[in-house]
Amino acid sequence: MDYDTLALDLHKQHGGKITTRLRDTDELDKTKLSAYYTPGVAAVSKAIADDPEKLRDYTWTHNLVAVISDGSAVLGLGNIGPRGSMPVMEGKSLLFKHFADIDSVPIILDVHTPDEIVATIKAIAPSFGAINLEDIASPQCFEIEERLKAELPIPVFHDDQHGTAVVTLAGLINATKITGRSLQDSKIVVVGAGAAGTAIIKLLRHYGASRVLAVDSHGIVSRNRTDLNDAKRLLLEHVDADTDGSLEDALTGADIFIGVSQPGVLTPELIAKMANDPIVFALANPTPEIMPDVARQAGVAVIATGRSDFPNQVNNAIAFPGIFRGALDNNVRMITDEHKIAAAEVIANLVQNPSPELIIPSPFDERIVPAVADVIR
Amino acid sequence: MDYDTLALDLHKQHGGKITTRLRDTDELDKTKLSAYYTPGVAAVSKAIADDPEKLRDYTWTHNLVAVISDGSAVLGLGNIGPRGSMPVMEGKSLLFKHFADIDSVPIILDVHTPDEIVATIKAIAPSFGAINLEDIASPQCFEIEERLKAELPIPVFHDDQHGTAVVTLAGLINATKITGRSLQDSKIVVVGAGAAGTAIIKLLRHYGASRVLAVDSHGIVSRNRTDLNDAKRLLLEHVDADTDGSLEDALTGADIFIGVSQPGVLTPELIAKMANDPIVFALANPTPEIMPDVARQAGVAVIATGRSDFPNQVNNAIAFPGIFRGALDNNVRMITDEHKIAAAEVIANLVQNPSPELIIPSPFDERIVPAVADVIR
Repeated sequence: MDYDTLALDLHKQHGGKITTRLRDTDELDKTKLSAYYTPGVAAVSKAIADDPEKLRDYTWTHNLVAVISDGSAVLGLGNIGPRGSMPVMEGKSLLFKHFADIDSVPIILDVHTPDEIVATIKAIAPSFGAINLEDIASPQCFEIEERLKAELPIPVFHDDQHGTAVVTLAGLINATKITGRSLQDSKIVVVGAGAAGTAIIKLLRHYGASRVLAVDSHGIVSRNRTDLNDAKRLLLEHVDADTDGSLEDALTGADIFIGVSQPGVLTPELIAKMANDPIVFALANPTPEIMPDVARQAGVAVIATGRSDFPNQVNNAIAFPGIFRGALDNNVRMITDEHKIAAAEVIANLVQNPSPELIIPSPFDERIVPAVADVIR
Repeated sequence: MDYDTLALDLHKQHGGKITTRLRDTDELDKTKLSAYYTPGVAAVSKAIADDPEKLRDYTWTHNLVAVISDGSAVLGLGNIGPRGSMPVMEGKSLLFKHFADIDSVPIILDVHTPDEIVATIKAIAPSFGAINLEDIASPQCFEIEERLKAELPIPVFHDDQHGTAVVTLAGLINATKITGRSLQDSKIVVVGAGAAGTAIIKLLRHYGASRVLAVDSHGIVSRNRTDLNDAKRLLLEHVDADTDGSLEDALTGADIFIGVSQPGVLTPELIAKMANDPIVFALANPTPEIMPDVARQAGVAVIATGRSDFPNQVNNAIAFPGIFRGALDNNVRMITDEHKIAAAEVIANLVQNPSPELIIPSPFDERIVPAVADVIR
């Protein structure tokens, strides 16, 4: 399928992907206009000025998520700038609507330092019920999210980090069940220490995993490394930081490989160094660290990728629609690690008989959004 | 009619006024999702990154206006802050959709200095096709609009200023026709030198009016005044700045009174000082400077107000939907004085036989938007 041509055609034909309409679909006569706008609207404005909590009751903010990016780390495209990122952000708004009936507005930012991004988002934040940060480069994304979470009274969720982490954990819960492992005791190697890798490591640790190694392009992330940036230095407290060595050293005897890195990073020779019946999550997009058929031939027991054309797709659309649906409906002001773990468990439990070909439900499974939303309280 | 109760009920029942939907209303199958989101969307992003002009072709920005306010001068409510202003801004988005099928997003700002407001709007500007500034206090609104117009490649239009000015000019064109005056030679007194008053004066001058006085709460705005702020000092070049005196002095012999001030400012005694068959635009909202029946008894030939329950309503909804419709469709990057005058003339011409009871068309007249849009090129 030539998705490129189809995508260009569909986007041009429809002039984008989302539009607005009025909530009240009855005819808008003069009386209604006088209630929705001046003079009636003044009573609504006064009610909110007196009690800002009423913003939820009287405006669309109760169902509204901003999808915000500066275009610095777009999909596989990298730093293509805000305008180039717009189709992806509008696409995310389409997913919010399609999967969870959430109103969503793509906001692309023409500023790029953490200070500027934080100041801009804080300035516009009252306009929205929640904020989905998207495709912001690491390590800036960590500081931006942390500051916004601390300073804003609405949920702020960097989906590239936490959406990926939640679905990965859900898949691992079922994959370890199949292979008779305990996730807590498994030796886990996470390759790629950017936004997604860091969030996966933190969530696994919070879930109780005790043996986690991080690997970047220079080898195992350990306290003996002198080339680590601030974000990777902060990662040291979440990994086995006393181990040095190469990717091969890390994978020796490992139970689980999680790649959020580059195509070709994992080879049959490296898999041979891992424990028997290893689990491989090869999440590089669009080309995984190893192709599923190659991995299976090399003895991998369960393989997941980021692709929809193979089984076990780690797709953020399994997590974020329900997480935001719950946060908005239950007036949750911060999405915590406990929320993320609860979401991962509920997603894992939707697969009744996990098998190597089925550890993660399809994003089209209509049970997902209500089930996830229900645990975000 | 108790609009307050109806407004509170309708807003609560519908949970606000606008929502989003997908442009492509056919079923969203897996293939389409792969074209609207990953992997297909990457081709669209690349096309825009290579040629930012394509943002119009492939995203909803071609039909999208941001309605932006800091809530510092809301309707008759004053400085009630961003959250309190949200129902008004969402109401404006409703009007954009209803009258001109324009997608619109209300953005409320939690910052209040011109520097912060300009920085925030510049940062988010690539997200939109045009910007409608709304209910921002004078005199800050002048600096904010001027800077944004100079620095952004999309239309920026402060509707409280220019929407009011366009409809006022349209009404005056017909009112002077009826009373046999030339607008160019009429003595015009504008009472209230805030956002709307300043914009009306500038547009009248640009139209050729040569005898304009501005009056504020301290009397005629003249170069001998020592209490003028920067904005009012800038106004001196647009008015007869050598005349001093009171409102009564200003109105003596005047042909036209335009009030954007306070209820009760205009009295029968003051009208008696004006020329015969004077024209009165009493635009204070919701209570005009003088009630229409009182004005007519005092000899006023034509009276207009801001209210929908009297004839000749000066309603911004007559101007802004068509102005933005034209700006978006014709890829106009700046709305100029020439555009505003052309819009006023086309609005005036839609009234085929002007009479004292009919100088301005109804905002429900469906000819308005296409006619106005057609002259914004």
